[in-house]
Amino acid sequence: MISKKMHEYVKNSSVIRAMFEEGRRLSTIYGAENVYDFSLGNPNLEPPTEVKKAILEILNEEAPTTVHGYMNNSGYEDVRETIAQSINRKFDTQFHKENIIMSVGAGGGLNVIFKTILDPGDEVITFAPFFGEYKNYVANFDATLLVVPPDTETFQPNLEIFESYITKKTKAVLINSPNNPSGVVYSESTLQQLADILYQKQKEMDTTIYLISDEPYRELAYDGIEVPYPTKYYDNTIVGYSFSKSLSLPGERIGYLVIPSEVDDFENMISAANIATRILGFVNAPSLFQKVAAKCLDAKVDLEYYDRNRTLLYDSLRSFGYECIKPQGAFYLFVKSPLEDDGAFCAKAKEKRILLVPGSSFGCPGYVRIAYCVAYETIQRSLPSFQALMEELK
Amino acid sequence: MISKKMHEYVKNSSVIRAMFEEGRRLSTIYGAENVYDFSLGNPNLEPPTEVKKAILEILNEEAPTTVHGYMNNSGYEDVRETIAQSINRKFDTQFHKENIIMSVGAGGGLNVIFKTILDPGDEVITFAPFFGEYKNYVANFDATLLVVPPDTETFQPNLEIFESYITKKTKAVLINSPNNPSGVVYSESTLQQLADILYQKQKEMDTTIYLISDEPYRELAYDGIEVPYPTKYYDNTIVGYSFSKSLSLPGERIGYLVIPSEVDDFENMISAANIATRILGFVNAPSLFQKVAAKCLDAKVDLEYYDRNRTLLYDSLRSFGYECIKPQGAFYLFVKSPLEDDGAFCAKAKEKRILLVPGSSFGCPGYVRIAYCVAYETIQRSLPSFQALMEELK
Repeated sequence: MISKKMHEYVKNSSVIRAMFEEGRRLSTIYGAENVYDFSLGNPNLEPPTEVKKAILEILNEEAPTTVHGYMNNSGYEDVRETIAQSINRKFDTQFHKENIIMSVGAGGGLNVIFKTILDPGDEVITFAPFFGEYKNYVANFDATLLVVPPDTETFQPNLEIFESYITKKTKAVLINSPNNPSGVVYSESTLQQLADILYQKQKEMDTTIYLISDEPYRELAYDGIEVPYPTKYYDNTIVGYSFSKSLSLPGERIGYLVIPSEVDDFENMISAANIATRILGFVNAPSLFQKVAAKCLDAKVDLEYYDRNRTLLYDSLRSFGYECIKPQGAFYLFVKSPLEDDGAFCAKAKEKRILLVPGSSFGCPGYVRIAYCVAYETIQRSLPSFQALMEELK
Repeated sequence: MISKKMHEYVKNSSVIRAMFEEGRRLSTIYGAENVYDFSLGNPNLEPPTEVKKAILEILNEEAPTTVHGYMNNSGYEDVRETIAQSINRKFDTQFHKENIIMSVGAGGGLNVIFKTILDPGDEVITFAPFFGEYKNYVANFDATLLVVPPDTETFQPNLEIFESYITKKTKAVLINSPNNPSGVVYSESTLQQLADILYQKQKEMDTTIYLISDEPYRELAYDGIEVPYPTKYYDNTIVGYSFSKSLSLPGERIGYLVIPSEVDDFENMISAANIATRILGFVNAPSLFQKVAAKCLDAKVDLEYYDRNRTLLYDSLRSFGYECIKPQGAFYLFVKSPLEDDGAFCAKAKEKRILLVPGSSFGCPGYVRIAYCVAYETIQRSLPSFQALMEELK
């Protein structure tokens, strides 16, 4: 009685649910502290203190009918202007409130922009490894996600193959930097080359190709590395941002889209994105947290904590013989599977109570993702098991 | 460059935007207090005091990583169980947390359930007058909304015509009581007859037809009238609820779906709705307000206020010669247009700075909707204009 499409999803989801149930089972037998769950990208850090302070200020100072009420589907105008000015200060851009649409997290924002631009049969290109949910988001609008195979040397996008994927059907290119699952930050040179290719192809084929940059991990970058702002390289760029990781608020579903005035068909796109927010059932991004976000644009979770996790895990795994590149951002380590079959390796790891996600889920078989947004002590306790696992497989 | 579907929406939306702009223009010229805007269903009442109290309690007593973190896509288990038990106490039902899926408002919930059950080409039947957004929600999944014409005597569903609309393609029937825009509460006898027809048709055609009850106005019922709980009449009933109006929190996007264990294909439906919440980009209902809602299940906005508005407006308009039935719930009055063309009447009303919505927007031409969720004083000040308008048109 459920729809045919959802039937497929339900069939496939049972695998993930089984993994989740297995984690629970292990916790019951061995105690939660002896199960090393690196499978979830759920921030373990508290929001910065500014968040609670902002909530209290808003509740005490503003009219409740405004704080919790309807506003324009795109969000409060003052919130959008504040966000635009903050981006301008950080990246030397020229946005105004008209360029900002508040969204129900990054997932909500991506669905709004895909609803806005995709016709059935359109193609969206992304680069492996990639967040598996992208496939579902694109499928929601009967379009197809094409995945450019990974460059496993650098995990930067493979631009030569990318170029050969572009056709008249290409409506958008979707990038994610800092990347989930590789932790790589796409370099300025990558963005510049990507832009050159897109400009040339647009001209060649007389089409519009939007570059959509999914940036939930923008603020999570280490060693002082700069994450280039993509609208500066290519006019038809749309940014999807989320406060889920920067402020540790994933449950609150708050983010925004940036639609620069330079994009093709700007006026229609702004109207359409506004309408899409409404008709997809979001209606608007949660109102209180729009206001909270605007008050916390310079706040950030304790990045040092993730950095310490990153260093301990990277250094230790390397010393045990694991191969991986050092992540520059996000909170994931993407490790080469010692077994060719990444699923089989995850199963072996589970025997040692280490829960990982196979790279196949990110379009990159032969690798596994380790989410290190966990307690430092969990990583410490897990290390002997990681070492023993490698010894066994050698 | 925007999608073909969205192009249509953008074209049509310019009419609504024009109306909105006109309201703004009138406010600038005559002062906001001299423009009588009855066009928006935006609650003017403050949330009950329990809401702020609940927020503060949660922020002070619970771990911020839990309050603002990810949970199961269906929502916090304790919140869902609390809601289930509250419904059970009120309506003598037997729900458990498994039957409750937290949603991003009623709009989010309806999209989740339609994603769950609708295949392209399926049909959903609803009854005029109806909330215009339903058409868009159904179209999101390439299904069709069929609208049963209104019974303008009672504004109860026209069940004879309804029966003739049911075919093998009918996947769902969508009802809304207390109704937007008529304010009518569907009676127990209506629900019983509806159930009888659906049971018979299911048997006759060997299909499953879900009854979806959209209930954002459930708590807004006057004169002690009971709003029957629809799952008690028909097994394949799904309820969509929202706290937007009961707690005056429309901006926070918080509601839930009730999927009883008795519905056909229950296990798959629960899994599919959980997945749909994720892949549509909602991910989960906003986390803090899930917890707030669970603490405020017995709280309610000041219904007396709306009731006073209802009485003043109804009694006055009737005395001026307007025809309408007395609404039993919600905060709308659905008035017969003195001109056959409801759009023309709205234009005339606008000349008197009264902003209304034509019934054509609700599948019911010849009527207009007056939203009385406004200040009592606004209604008082508008009355001479309503009277003068009727005098002119007589």
